Formats: sequence, structure tokens, C-alpha cells
Amino acid sequence: MTQLMSTSVFVPGHVTGFFTVNSAEERARTGSRGAGVTLTDGVNVTVRPDDGGSTLRVNEAVTSVEAVEYVLEELAAPPVFIEAETPLPLGAGFGVSGALALGTAMAVTREFTLDRTLNECITIAHKAEVRAGTGLGDVVAQAHGGISIRAEPGAPAYNTLDTVLGCPRVEYCVFGSRSTETVLAGDTQPLNAAGERALEQLQTHPTPSQFMKSARAFARETSLASATVSSAIEAVAEGGDVATMAMLGETVFCFGEGLSQAGYDPTVSTVTPSGAALEE
Amino acid sequence: MTQLMSTSVFVPGHVTGFFTVNSAEERARTGSRGAGVTLTDGVNVTVRPDDGGSTLRVNEAVTSVEAVEYVLEELAAPPVFIEAETPLPLGAGFGVSGALALGTAMAVTREFTLDRTLNECITIAHKAEVRAGTGLGDVVAQAHGGISIRAEPGAPAYNTLDTVLGCPRVEYCVFGSRSTETVLAGDTQPLNAAGERALEQLQTHPTPSQFMKSARAFARETSLASATVSSAIEAVAEGGDVATMAMLGETVFCFGEGLSQAGYDPTVSTVTPSGAALEE
Repeated sequence: MTQLMSTSVFVPGHVTGFFTVNSAEERARTGSRGAGVTLTDGVNVTVRPDDGGSTLRVNEAVTSVEAVEYVLEELAAPPVFIEAETPLPLGAGFGVSGALALGTAMAVTREFTLDRTLNECITIAHKAEVRAGTGLGDVVAQAHGGISIRAEPGAPAYNTLDTVLGCPRVEYCVFGSRSTETVLAGDTQPLNAAGERALEQLQTHPTPSQFMKSARAFARETSLASATVSSAIEAVAEGGDVATMAMLGETVFCFGEGLSQAGYDPTVSTVTPSGAALEE
Repeated sequence: MTQLMSTSVFVPGHVTGFFTVNSAEERARTGSRGAGVTLTDGVNVTVRPDDGGSTLRVNEAVTSVEAVEYVLEELAAPPVFIEAETPLPLGAGFGVSGALALGTAMAVTREFTLDRTLNECITIAHKAEVRAGTGLGDVVAQAHGGISIRAEPGAPAYNTLDTVLGCPRVEYCVFGSRSTETVLAGDTQPLNAAGERALEQLQTHPTPSQFMKSARAFARETSLASATVSSAIEAVAEGGDVATMAMLGETVFCFGEGLSQAGYDPTVSTVTPSGAALEE
């Protein structure tokens, strides 16, 4: 058997704390403002040439993800076998679809030495997520790393990104899954007002603790939290800590140890300062 | 003895392959276009409050670096003791002064919980380097990571950065030191013409090997290489590989194994995809 060449990319998970929805005619200008955290937990995407049609496997199960299909369509590359591995749950607010789209764009570009920069890969993956309705800000944040502030929306040619200094420990509990598409397809006006307020607070005081407070205020004002999520946030608040909801998932997260001290059994991760990168 | 609180930041080294000089009235708009590589070898900067005046120590020797003084002046923070450790030589084209300036800005901001984002720290450090005449593009590249393309010059509010995919092995030999100030203070018109050509080539074919070819062409066209540097570049070329000069230092670098195969005894490093980050 011949050993096939392959290319691997690691893309960090991304949990949004608060956001606005910014629609435009062009997909590259569509996106969101807001802030979120990228995690050391993420998605490993490995790509190798394949004789047949392109196949995507996530944690050993063959599946299809619309955003990945759009990426392959735009790249117009030869057929590939895409093998993705992640400890993160799908549909729980960790940006797994964005990670798959970005990881595929980067790995295929490198595998076939296509003449594309990282910004071009980010743009292709961002547009694919927008087209699929599965994300507005994950891809650009996942390429950037850290506690990222999306000061202006869209792909790299249009957006403005900044970073809150600090890489704290993160705890999170996943209580179920939730559809991003449904929320993004609904009335986003109230989200935008709350998102703008949260962003302004964080830009005035750019610290990890202010990120968490602004995100919790956003969750309260938008009433996006389910009863289960709300009660976990309340339990952490009773212990004097701040937790909030992953936008958008049935997931609660906090910095430090708030969830474990409130009696939950959270997964522990850390904010990573690094964005998506080829593994060589 | 009381254990004092401290904050540490790691800033990667940065070797410029080619550049232009872009002067403007505002220091934040002054900078350079071009491309370079950030290395896993870098500078660890640790800051802790100090009772006396501020002190900078690099590899256990008390020293003064103009750009660091300007950073402290602009931060207007309490006095600090700054301890820096690095395997990189000073004045050899590795962006050590930029790393010290950026590391200090980030560590002091975090140590005293000042209300500043990463972009604001980058801007302060970039302006300090411009004012000192010791660098035009190192700081923004060191914050970014990877094989970075500075498509537009200046601090984050003005610049445009992109990345060539790939994190190859790097070999380098240092033959002496060289003053960045002297070159930047001279006639920069011929540099700019060569820098623009190299940038256009790399943007058309954004690959690691094109980076190296464009950088070598820049070194030839600008005649910045000394006899020692030129002969090392030639020796690598005779073996069929491409090496070039670190801008600005008496330093030759290549991807892969070109220098060792030409009989030199190079230091080995790797391109890091990660920019400067707090160590927590």
C-alpha cells in the first residue's frame, strides 16, 4: 500500500459570549460583532487526496456538513478524504462547523499548494458558514485566537479584530444541543441592541472578568437561556462567580472554578492565545 | 521575603525577509510593508512591581533599550523590574528590541490590570520602535505569528496583515551585528522599489518557497549583504537550496537544511504560527 501524503490543521473551539447580527448583500461583509473565547479543545482536520468523491468523517462517523461542502465547491480542488477528530460536542455552541470549514480550507490549500493566503482561506470558510446559516463570527475568531473582540463584522478584508489580554481556565457543562440556524433566522433586532451594549462595556474595560459580566448581561437581556441553562448560571452566581451561556448552545461556561464549586461536573479547558494552524 | 506577583509574556523572534520604508507624520501610520518569519525562539519578558525606578535586565545583564523606555513612558504605570531571557542575539536581525517593547507593554498592562486591549499594546510598542528608529514592522509581525505578510504598514488601526500557510524548519547563522538605525536613516528609495517587487511576487504565489526566493532577490537588488553573508547565500545556492539575509543583521537564514548541507553549523528553529502571548 502506498502511504498517501496528508495535511493536518488544528482549529480551536470557539464559544461566543455575546453578538450582533450584521447582514449585508455580500457574504464576505455579512457577519457579527461581539466577543468570544477560543479554547485549547478544538478540531483536528486531516485531508488527503481521494480517488472517489469527497468524504467527511467526524469522530469516525461519515457525515455531511453544509459549510464544508461550500468550501470544497469554492476551492474547486481534487476530491479529498477529510478526517476530523474533536472532543467537542456538535450543536452545543463550540463552533465545530466553523472549525471544519476553516480546517478544510487551510488543509486543502496546503495539500495541493494552491496560491491562497490564510486570509483567503478564512474568507472562503466564513462565506461558507454565512451561506449555510451556521455561524457569523466563529471562523474569524477561530483564526485569531484568544478572548477575541469582533469590533467590526465580516471576513478579513472588512472586519476589525482585537483581543482581551489573558488566557484563563475555562469550565463548561453541556446540557443538550440547539440550532444556530433557527435563532439567526428569527427576529435579531433585540439581540443587536443587547450585543452593542455588551460590546461597548467590554471595549471600555477589556478584561476577562468584564467579558464574562457583559456576556451574562447579554444572556439575561435576550432571554436566550433555557430553564436548565438559567439555573446553572444562577447556581454559579450564588457562589459569587460569573457564568454565562454559550451562544448558541445548551451550554454554560465560566472562567475559574465556578461550575465545579456550584456542584456541577464540568469539562475543564483553557483559553488558547493561538488561532488555527497547520500541524507540521 | 514576600513573594511578589509577576506577569510573563513570550514574544517570538522575527526575521524580516524584505521590506519597504513607509514614513508618515504619525508614528502609528509609519511602518513598513514586506514579509518575515516569526520563530519558536523568542524573548520571555517577566514584569513585577519595583519600589525604585524601572530596571531592565536582559539575560542577567542590566541594560537600557530606548523602545522599552518609551513604552514605560506612554503606559505611565508604576515602576517595574523587567527580566528578559532570550537565546537570540541582539543586533542580528531577530527583532529583540521589538520583542522587549511588546512584551513590556503586554506584561505591564496585565500586571496592573490597565484597561488596554492587545491592539493598544501593539500600537504603543510599534510607536516606541518607530520613535527609537529600531524597527518598523517587527512588533506587528511578532504579535501576529507565522510567515506574515505586511500588506499595509503601521499599527493595527492602519495596517493589513496576512499569512503564508506553513511552519517550516528554519536554519540560521549569525556572523556579527549590524545597526538597523543606520540603514533606516539612509536613502530608502532603492529599498522600496525592490521591496514592492518582492511583495507583489509573494502575494501572487503565497508559499514558503516563494517567500525565500523573493527575499533573496531583495537582498541581491539592495546590495545590503556583506561579503560574508553573500558567500553563505551563494554556498547554499550551489547546493540547490535558497537562503537569504535577515533584514537587518549579519545573519543568513533558510528553510529546511540548506545551511547545514553547505557545511555551516547553523542554529535550528521553526516558524511558529503563534504571536506574542501571556504565559499563565
